[in-house]
Amino acid sequence: MSVVVQNIERADQEVIDALANCGVATVHEAQGRIGLLASYMRPIYRGARVGGSALTILAPPADNWMLHVAIEQLQPGDVMVLAVTGPSDAGYFGDLLATSAMAQGCRGLIIDAGVRDVVELEDMGFPVWSKAICAQGTVKETLGSVNVPVVCAGAAVAPGDVVLADDDGVCVVKREDAAEVLEKARARLALEEEKRQRLASGELGLDMYKMRERLAQKGLRYL
Amino acid sequence: MSVVVQNIERADQEVIDALANCGVATVHEAQGRIGLLASYMRPIYRGARVGGSALTILAPPADNWMLHVAIEQLQPGDVMVLAVTGPSDAGYFGDLLATSAMAQGCRGLIIDAGVRDVVELEDMGFPVWSKAICAQGTVKETLGSVNVPVVCAGAAVAPGDVVLADDDGVCVVKREDAAEVLEKARARLALEEEKRQRLASGELGLDMYKMRERLAQKGLRYL
Amino acid sequence: MSVVVQNIERADQEVIDALANCGVATVHEAQGRIGLLASYMRPIYRGARVGGSALTILAPPADNWMLHVAIEQLQPGDVMVLAVTGPSDAGYFGDLLATSAMAQGCRGLIIDAGVRDVVELEDMGFPVWSKAICAQGTVKETLGSVNVPVVCAGAAVAPGDVVLADDDGVCVVKREDAAEVLEKARARLALEEEKRQRLASGELGLDMYKMRERLAQKGLRYL
Amino acid sequence: MSVVVQNIERADQEVIDALANCGVATVHEAQGRIGLLASYMRPIYRGARVGGSALTILAPPADNWMLHVAIEQLQPGDVMVLAVTGPSDAGYFGDLLATSAMAQGCRGLIIDAGVRDVVELEDMGFPVWSKAICAQGTVKETLGSVNVPVVCAGAAVAPGDVVLADDDGVCVVKREDAAEVLEKARARLALEEEKRQRLASGELGLDMYKMRERLAQKGLRYL
Amino acid sequence: MSVVVQNIERADQEVIDALANCGVATVHEAQGRIGLLASYMRPIYRGARVGGSALTILAPPADNWMLHVAIEQLQPGDVMVLAVTGPSDAGYFGDLLATSAMAQGCRGLIIDAGVRDVVELEDMGFPVWSKAICAQGTVKETLGSVNVPVVCAGAAVAPGDVVLADDDGVCVVKREDAAEVLEKARARLALEEEKRQRLASGELGLDMYKMRERLAQKGLRYL
Amino acid sequence: MSVVVQNIERADQEVIDALANCGVATVHEAQGRIGLLASYMRPIYRGARVGGSALTILAPPADNWMLHVAIEQLQPGDVMVLAVTGPSDAGYFGDLLATSAMAQGCRGLIIDAGVRDVVELEDMGFPVWSKAICAQGTVKETLGSVNVPVVCAGAAVAPGDVVLADDDGVCVVKREDAAEVLEKARARLALEEEKRQRLASGELGLDMYKMRERLAQKGLRYL
Repeated sequence: MSVVVQNIERADQEVIDALANCGVATVHEAQGRIGLLASYMRPIYRGARVGGSALTILAPPADNWMLHVAIEQLQPGDVMVLAVTGPSDAGYFGDLLATSAMAQGCRGLIIDAGVRDVVELEDMGFPVWSKAICAQGTVKETLGSVNVPVVCAGAAVAPGDVVLADDDGVCVVKREDAAEVLEKARARLALEEEKRQRLASGELGLDMYKMRERLAQKGLRYL
Repeated sequence: MSVVVQNIERADQEVIDALANCGVATVHEAQGRIGLLASYMRPIYRGARVGGSALTILAPPADNWMLHVAIEQLQPGDVMVLAVTGPSDAGYFGDLLATSAMAQGCRGLIIDAGVRDVVELEDMGFPVWSKAICAQGTVKETLGSVNVPVVCAGAAVAPGDVVLADDDGVCVVKREDAAEVLEKARARLALEEEKRQRLASGELGLDMYKMRERLAQKGLRYL
Repeated sequence: MSVVVQNIERADQEVIDALANCGVATVHEAQGRIGLLASYMRPIYRGARVGGSALTILAPPADNWMLHVAIEQLQPGDVMVLAVTGPSDAGYFGDLLATSAMAQGCRGLIIDAGVRDVVELEDMGFPVWSKAICAQGTVKETLGSVNVPVVCAGAAVAPGDVVLADDDGVCVVKREDAAEVLEKARARLALEEEKRQRLASGELGLDMYKMRERLAQKGLRYL
Repeated sequence: MSVVVQNIERADQEVIDALANCGVATVHEAQGRIGLLASYMRPIYRGARVGGSALTILAPPADNWMLHVAIEQLQPGDVMVLAVTGPSDAGYFGDLLATSAMAQGCRGLIIDAGVRDVVELEDMGFPVWSKAICAQGTVKETLGSVNVPVVCAGAAVAPGDVVLADDDGVCVVKREDAAEVLEKARARLALEEEKRQRLASGELGLDMYKMRERLAQKGLRYL
Repeated sequence: MSVVVQNIERADQEVIDALANCGVATVHEAQGRIGLLASYMRPIYRGARVGGSALTILAPPADNWMLHVAIEQLQPGDVMVLAVTGPSDAGYFGDLLATSAMAQGCRGLIIDAGVRDVVELEDMGFPVWSKAICAQGTVKETLGSVNVPVVCAGAAVAPGDVVLADDDGVCVVKREDAAEVLEKARARLALEEEKRQRLASGELGLDMYKMRERLAQKGLRYL
Repeated sequence: MSVVVQNIERADQEVIDALANCGVATVHEAQGRIGLLASYMRPIYRGARVGGSALTILAPPADNWMLHVAIEQLQPGDVMVLAVTGPSDAGYFGDLLATSAMAQGCRGLIIDAGVRDVVELEDMGFPVWSKAICAQGTVKETLGSVNVPVVCAGAAVAPGDVVLADDDGVCVVKREDAAEVLEKARARLALEEEKRQRLASGELGLDMYKMRERLAQKGLRYL
């Protein structure tokens, strides 16, 4: 039952890039607060922001064989999303695999396990969001699958979904929803800019969002 | 039972600033090793150091409504301290709320939950110590309270207490003890400076602190 | 049964330095994937890399007395490795102890507990890998031992073993194996450099490592 | 986007019951080691074993409103599977909800959050597998959905999938695979019985599974 | 600053006992969802239910000296509540201390640390709610305090407050609120009994609580 | 470097059994508070108490092959102690392996990983202390070693060391120290019995242990 699905559909790259520019928190809100990976997924260095099409990998605990298989399936603009069949914080990925992935146009890795060579990865500019940083090596003994639907850090990810990651975390947008979510995210950002200016000038959220009446109805008392 | 206490007493701002300059570890020692928040409270960026009067917020899990209520109560020099009635790592706070809080003179946020927009917050220079970084949004449905005594990350905090935070963690000093603790902290720092020079010159702590006799009495053997 | 062993053997300093240059992940692989400390041991700042002879410390929970005893036993090039007899995240170590340790030629600290004054430690260039950052102080009441075999963060460490630490974690090499492991690590690095160039040029790991046949035998299917 | 899907397909009840009898560990193996929920999901009392059709619930953090909505959709033989849009260990479920659920024929609850009234639930014979036991109450303010695909404790669950739970954990079998997995599980059990007798009589697994040659090839040495 | 406060006020024992009978979850609800200790506090055996006046203890990490001091202050009906100045899971308490505490009329222990001799404690019928079960011993070197306000497992507890504990967790009721909370808890139980019967007969919570209109207003759609 | 050491020395079985009868907490104290495994090691059922000679196993993450190898090396009275080269909570061990181990005279398993079939194991009377209960299976692909020194749950264990486990946790006694530790443990138990009677009669520990003067010297004040 170990398979490599070779042809997957991807969202439009311009849409993906525009979504990445909106930021994870905004996109997550714009699509109705779904698709967020668990907050234990942290970037290995600050300031990275990435968007791409999910090339999904399902791997056994402490076994990174499928990463080698997956790299052949990469297309420029892809982000690898590695889920595990059992928890592991071993270091599945390091600078050699990153060299290979970058040569195929890969933009980053989301991995519900460990990563190593983090200084080298930062120097190479290859961003990774992971559960752990760990020098522990892995074996190449047991099969998994590539480009099947997976659950990564608590979120369901299908191959070709849009994956976005920045310092706030990692979010997945269903491929078919990408354009619509982008529109909503942009609308949200436009609104936020106006709100930001009003708040910066000292206007209170209580007034701007007209919260006072509802707070009183709920029973808030000022002493 | 949801209340907003509007008038709270605060410590003298010069004392607060002086305490902040002493650093969390020193102040914590100076006041007898009390008042420290749990070590899972981490700054969202390195190098921030803040002191202020605690504006306390008690909020339900994954509901940030009370932050909007609290911001109206801010006075310049305040630090918001958000405690939860049940654990949550949702992102209660982001750049819009920070814009509003800064406009009211707020110096930072201590939150026993999650925060988002961390890159923007660093760019704005608004420091946050939190349990989690998480893009997950919150609702505005359930009341809490503002400026009531709370327990935040294991420490009791009363409104108007002095809150200090740096890379070593977060510490609270009772408002009425602030001046006395400052005096002790300064005395401690003066002593430390002298000790530092002696240690730097190669003198051993065993000798400087006259530990050898007591170690021998306890039974330490050198082989 | 609290002892300080005063004379321990150390590995050759040139070998130690050369091992440190190879990096933790490489050395860990080179010696057969043993000797790694748990991945919760994290550096207090980025970019540090250290190698040294282990001066081991066994300390009670929240009691740092033995650190003072240990500093007297330091020789230039040593790294202190502190293990606990019961879990603690208290701040055993800060800038004063670091001043003293540096004056004796110590290169860093590996501590299965907490550390404080992290900004000052970074300014001093004294690297620490720890389980926690915590301003909580410790007492000086209960004895432990210095230079006895310990278990630190899940790894057995003997006095005089080679300790290596960088952003990927911490690894211990048995003193008597140091030279042999260095040889293997260097061989590994040489091989890696060649692989890196082939992968960078677009060659696939599947081909370079000749994995295709074995994958097929295991039953991997391409769809 | 909050919906209640009212008509879902379910697997054959006899197949479900037979799968439950096989046990979670056996079924998990039989279907190729997929579908297991995270091991933090623990039963609130020992000795329960349950199988049923998944009625899925997606609920906000610390908000149990959707449980009331879900109960109306229950059919005899169902097991409720509650997933959250953000982590929570609040007590979503207690004896009143259990009374209601049992009245509709519900067999148990799998909840990636907290539960309370555990003594009463055990007395009633209503089994729950949960992330936490917690008396903390929840609100009824925010919608979620019923009978949509969810991720519960790291496993993807679709409405109508077969859910099995016992002291070893919780496993989900895709509805359409239920019959085939049952067949494999039964075959496995039959084989196990024979193996058990041979092992009980003292035969070694090394011989029974013919492992000696492969161990030698891999390089195992006997000293 | 280490003190033993010898005279504390206690609530009426009949009120305390009646509160204990109501159960932790009910009392927690009745007093507005405050006062609950963190859910990691678990009973060392099933089926215990206890109520008493809090004799508070503030103890250093891994040091149980203050327990000996506290036992002298016990009055029949008291429950000891031990908070720590820094986290520890050492075994502060075992069968000898329980023998002594029981001889003074103590009803149980709530401890934000570890406990040992759990089989013996169960045999003696001395219930404990703890963060850990751990055979690790403690020292008697550093002072703490008895009957001062503490924070235990995230909840503020004052000496003489009412402490309630059962399989759902641990809850504290302010001494001065005990009678009023009891009244509310009883009212709640009376209401629950009626609800239970209606739910058991098959009536839906959706109808009994009249939720349908509000769900529709919020936008819930049935498919 | 994967080896099976076939001949190991064991302690006297009568000494081992007598140590087991003393209990983990007492033995741990008697030997100077060393040798305790981390408190996350919990028994899969209540009331088990076991003592035996450690047959050590070093196994890769999620790979239980070495258990089959180890079983051949068992002698009646042995307890298997499984350590991992990287963290895993997979279920390495279940009822089939237990059947085989029991047939060789094995008394129990200490495993720094997961176990499954816990109901069956309890029915068989085969006690296990583990980090996790998890139905997740393991592979048989990578070698480890048998009867080499290991670190299990933070404690160093040599083959043939005495392993003791009960509801308070797991403790290891060096083989060569077994007789001496037994003597000390028995002395301790004798003393405890006398203390128990005095404490039960109402005598205070403060008096029995003569603590009052030292408390006063340290500065304890009674208010």
